[in-house]
Amino acid sequence: MKVVIVGGVAGGATAAARLRRLDEQAQIIVFEKSGFVSYANCGLPYFIGGVIENEEALTLQTPENFKIRFNIDVNVHHEVLAIHKEAQTVTVKNLATGEIFDESYDRLILSPGAKPTVPNLDLTALKQVFSLRTVEDTLNIHRYIQANKPKSVLLAGGGFIGVELAENLCDLGMDVTIVQSQPQLMAPLDSEMAAFLHSTMRAHGVKLAFGHRVSNIRAVDGGVEAVFKDGGSLQADMMVLAIGVTPDTKLAKDAGLTLGIRESIVVTDKMETSHKNIYAVGDAVQVKHSITGENALISLAGPANKQGRIVADVICGLDSRYHGSQGSSVLKLFDMTMATTGINERTAKALGLHYDKVYLSPANHAGYYPGGNIMTMKVLFDATTYKLLGAQIVGYDGVDKRIDVLATAMHMGMTALQLKDLDLAYAPPYSSAKDPVNMAGFMIENIANGTVKQWFMEDALPRDGSVTLLDTRTAEEYAGGHINGFQNIPVDDLRENLHTLEKTKPIYVVCQSGLRSYIACRMLRQNGFDAYNMAGGYRLYAVVAENAQASKEALPCGKES
Amino acid sequence: MKVVIVGGVAGGATAAARLRRLDEQAQIIVFEKSGFVSYANCGLPYFIGGVIENEEALTLQTPENFKIRFNIDVNVHHEVLAIHKEAQTVTVKNLATGEIFDESYDRLILSPGAKPTVPNLDLTALKQVFSLRTVEDTLNIHRYIQANKPKSVLLAGGGFIGVELAENLCDLGMDVTIVQSQPQLMAPLDSEMAAFLHSTMRAHGVKLAFGHRVSNIRAVDGGVEAVFKDGGSLQADMMVLAIGVTPDTKLAKDAGLTLGIRESIVVTDKMETSHKNIYAVGDAVQVKHSITGENALISLAGPANKQGRIVADVICGLDSRYHGSQGSSVLKLFDMTMATTGINERTAKALGLHYDKVYLSPANHAGYYPGGNIMTMKVLFDATTYKLLGAQIVGYDGVDKRIDVLATAMHMGMTALQLKDLDLAYAPPYSSAKDPVNMAGFMIENIANGTVKQWFMEDALPRDGSVTLLDTRTAEEYAGGHINGFQNIPVDDLRENLHTLEKTKPIYVVCQSGLRSYIACRMLRQNGFDAYNMAGGYRLYAVVAENAQASKEALPCGKES
Repeated sequence: MKVVIVGGVAGGATAAARLRRLDEQAQIIVFEKSGFVSYANCGLPYFIGGVIENEEALTLQTPENFKIRFNIDVNVHHEVLAIHKEAQTVTVKNLATGEIFDESYDRLILSPGAKPTVPNLDLTALKQVFSLRTVEDTLNIHRYIQANKPKSVLLAGGGFIGVELAENLCDLGMDVTIVQSQPQLMAPLDSEMAAFLHSTMRAHGVKLAFGHRVSNIRAVDGGVEAVFKDGGSLQADMMVLAIGVTPDTKLAKDAGLTLGIRESIVVTDKMETSHKNIYAVGDAVQVKHSITGENALISLAGPANKQGRIVADVICGLDSRYHGSQGSSVLKLFDMTMATTGINERTAKALGLHYDKVYLSPANHAGYYPGGNIMTMKVLFDATTYKLLGAQIVGYDGVDKRIDVLATAMHMGMTALQLKDLDLAYAPPYSSAKDPVNMAGFMIENIANGTVKQWFMEDALPRDGSVTLLDTRTAEEYAGGHINGFQNIPVDDLRENLHTLEKTKPIYVVCQSGLRSYIACRMLRQNGFDAYNMAGGYRLYAVVAENAQASKEALPCGKES
Repeated sequence: MKVVIVGGVAGGATAAARLRRLDEQAQIIVFEKSGFVSYANCGLPYFIGGVIENEEALTLQTPENFKIRFNIDVNVHHEVLAIHKEAQTVTVKNLATGEIFDESYDRLILSPGAKPTVPNLDLTALKQVFSLRTVEDTLNIHRYIQANKPKSVLLAGGGFIGVELAENLCDLGMDVTIVQSQPQLMAPLDSEMAAFLHSTMRAHGVKLAFGHRVSNIRAVDGGVEAVFKDGGSLQADMMVLAIGVTPDTKLAKDAGLTLGIRESIVVTDKMETSHKNIYAVGDAVQVKHSITGENALISLAGPANKQGRIVADVICGLDSRYHGSQGSSVLKLFDMTMATTGINERTAKALGLHYDKVYLSPANHAGYYPGGNIMTMKVLFDATTYKLLGAQIVGYDGVDKRIDVLATAMHMGMTALQLKDLDLAYAPPYSSAKDPVNMAGFMIENIANGTVKQWFMEDALPRDGSVTLLDTRTAEEYAGGHINGFQNIPVDDLRENLHTLEKTKPIYVVCQSGLRSYIACRMLRQNGFDAYNMAGGYRLYAVVAENAQASKEALPCGKES
């Protein structure tokens, strides 16, 4: 059997190695357009920032290694130009020599990945404008910085690569501005959760210029200017485009394979394309979102690697299936970590789901053990079945752990009510006796059995005196900042002050994180009040309000006259 | 409703607070024998070591707090002497005044905890011998160390408390010796996994004196001598007894409640004891092990806190159930972390289960990102159904995360084969595109579909030439140490050397961690060899061999003449 693999990173490389382990006799040929194979694409921003010091660390695998260990022929600098699906051949160009030749296959695996979205502009003359996909791109940026010592950079795009680059370039001492049309960083997060990232970015001096769509990029004296559709512009010494990724599927399209959303390749759960003996894996394929059941594009390394293994299994006759992605992801941002799994509230709304949500602010480990930090967790669940729909966490240590626990729970179709029963490992340096994930379960159980009713920051509470607005924090906390219109009765003074509150009016209660206001709500409800607990507390409110204010104080963009 | 709670730590304190949140009108009275309520019992060793600096951090909750916030009467220094279950009263002694009185109840919750196992010796005169259970014990040890500056300490017992104390006293500069009859630390670990802990202990200068049962403890000039049943003895400036814990159930026994294993209190899944209106929670109760279905004693804070909440729910008419424990636990030991969930191999054997196992040595995060470390993971599963039975991990960062993911998978009854499909969050600082938990799944799938056959360190391989013993590491690695009798052919040289191996003999293959030997086994099997891959690799073998050697070099114990 002769297997040709187009693309030697992530899915392609995994498929090649697994194929060999399953079939010692197969002929396995990999064509990779770039000069590197199976490189650490998720590490590229960290090489630019100097966190990863050696180029070799990114490119540990070489064509020679693949040949020696796996007897696989890896051809770098080889671009596959066309698929002849009836003849079962591909036309290949050796980019080093210009030679063009045909290669036959019994099975063809496409692992072309996704390419950075680049504005429809001619940027070839602009030496100070880069995009970031390959090792070569990385080395170009690295060399440019070494040689030209740029002091400022414009980053177009605030997704994974944009955010990771922002941190790395900031750590190099550069003046970093992220510019994009979207009003927030990291689309997998809901806006109130992204506000925590924005605060951290701003605290590190990174400027955020949201709401600007780039219409032109041009060289200016010693640098580059991005001109926006809204007429403004920003200048910097260099610019990196990291706006998003698009499936790199021209080859598949030209070959007439069935394409799906955003021209991704449609595949079965066995990674089969629409044409026999052609398979596809990785960022270029359309997957089933395992939470929504909808078709989705999920450009992440985990799914790509899993699919690479599965396609090799399938080709070798094993019954392996890809069961879909739930989009679990994690991101480091300076000392902060953000992580998500499943869908966010924006998606739940767009799908018209009947959902509910909780926010909590637990510590990553026992409060009395040094080094603890607070994380903010949002859990989304079906309001009828309580099935888990998604989770988002921003914080510091221990965020990645809780998202993986939640991802595992969701993978098994767990309901939010079952989270409270999870027997998780506890010792003071690692967790609390009630782990944050258990806590989320307790809170959702309280909602399910009617113990608690919630209100949300985005609810427009009447300010006409028809409801009571109550802040149950201490007088000091209240004096330090509170939501307009809320009166202060600390929770510990509430029992003796119940008579001062009107029973006929609903009471909306807030505290710092939601715990004291929950205790207050229980006290109130059992005394005949219709009380509602604010999800997320003043802590969430303050971060969102601060972010809204900072976003309003628009970054000075030179308006064209 | 009047609820009396015996014991104000963990389960008792949780029950009290939850009761108030559910029932504003109930009368809630807590009796706690010690001087402190809801204290941080898992933090006590860290106060002794100075990691937790302030006593207040351990005792954040006070009777006054409970009164103000929850309107709960917490009586410290009050010992409940007797339960009169027909009269529904308890007899209480105020330990401060000596006063004895009766208190009636509608519902009684027993949360007496477990007490350190103390040898049947009169130790009252020995001021330099301590046990560790309460805040008072902690302060006693702390004060003794401050005042007497002991240079050496004997710790009897190598469980959680013993190991945590060893680290903390070692960090104070003390010469620490752990003495016990068991041949390993941390019984939840299998012996080969405990070997990693032993190495770490020894590397930090902690001495391990296993196989000695203490028969007497006596004062010697300026210190203490522990005399062993085997005739040896050890001396030190002080001694702490941390041999294990026993359910503190005299009260329940005297009251005629049904007791279970080791005199623990038998309860239903609603935490009901054998007598109406009496409930029990925490370390004193017998639970169902959720993996084996057997009765078990699991003295951990997580279950105790969950049970405290459940008993309050039940008393207030909610349908809450305790679904059993799977014994998830985690321990810090210097920079090392060890964690377990489910059952270990010793237990699986004792139960006669038909199990199988894998070992793997994955990195906690992408190898090219700085700061990575190797962990050793052991996963146990049913050899027929592939249901997960247990996992043990020793390593550094990221161990607690993987055990919680595995604990969640096990809680949902996941099979080991499903681990490969988990969609876990990946970025280079946190994981690899194939997370260690996915990797365990891949390995077990390979066993399930016959792709790999394993051999184990404990297998007695014939050394009579009837089998081939093959080490596939590099020549340098092989020269640095190898298993006796194994010949060396590096994996990358194997294809061209296949003809040197005899096809009629089974081949037992080893490499450092099991990956290269797996590749070699695939190559061999497809070339007609009957090849077996060593689980855990030379890495595991070397640690176990080193530990066996160190244990043999017996600690000098002065033999009595």
